[in-house]
Amino acid sequence: MFAPQFDAAGLIPCIVTDASTAEVLMLAHMNQEAVAKTLTTGEAWYYSRSRAKLWRKGETSGHTQRVVEMRVDCDQDTLLIRVEQVGAGACHTGRPTCFYRTVPLKQDDVRRVVLDFREEKVFDPVKVYGAKPGT
Amino acid sequence: MFAPQFDAAGLIPCIVTDASTAEVLMLAHMNQEAVAKTLTTGEAWYYSRSRAKLWRKGETSGHTQRVVEMRVDCDQDTLLIRVEQVGAGACHTGRPTCFYRTVPLKQDDVRRVVLDFREEKVFDPVKVYGAKPGT
Repeated sequence: MFAPQFDAAGLIPCIVTDASTAEVLMLAHMNQEAVAKTLTTGEAWYYSRSRAKLWRKGETSGHTQRVVEMRVDCDQDTLLIRVEQVGAGACHTGRPTCFYRTVPLKQDDVRRVVLDFREEKVFDPVKVYGAKPGT
Repeated sequence: MFAPQFDAAGLIPCIVTDASTAEVLMLAHMNQEAVAKTLTTGEAWYYSRSRAKLWRKGETSGHTQRVVEMRVDCDQDTLLIRVEQVGAGACHTGRPTCFYRTVPLKQDDVRRVVLDFREEKVFDPVKVYGAKPGT
């Protein structure tokens, strides 16, 4: 049986991948209501920890996610959804994925690692969200 | 600069994918020491919440993970590593991935969802770990 293990805050992490490219787009969190809404509607719903509210992905940007498949891990404490990303990008900074920077390996001093940008912006977050340009 | 955001417990979640197939293998957690050891050695080190200790992936099973790339997300509160999985499988249950079960979509009653098994075991966890067969 499906028995998602929510943490002390009532949340479960959810890895989101692009169903066509298999690229990891983001890590989000779901509460019980977000899991139920995602399963019943087939659209991705999350719980925003920063805004403390249930959130339909794309409700502001229009960049919704249609869920192709949901998986659960061995301990049932992590979900994975494969989605069709509607619109340009999953990341609020304007990139297709939140993981647009690499961390160089084989570092002598990990406190001084400079990140390497790998993904270009595909939309302008100021135009889409009104303010607060991303990183 | 690389500035991973550890949570109140000193941990950061890390999504692990197979570098050759792009399949998501597991979600693990790293503390500061695990991040440093992973970056300096190029092998995956995690922090086990259940055993409360630093853990080199594969130290018991021999199923180590060579890190091909590390990425960090927009908020720097999630890591992603692409690995070459040495040995048969990443999951302690004997499967290649921890996400071996799907959750059927478009459910009327999400409290009564029966999971669908998609991945066969590729090793016998009783032989590899001695006891405690997985799910």
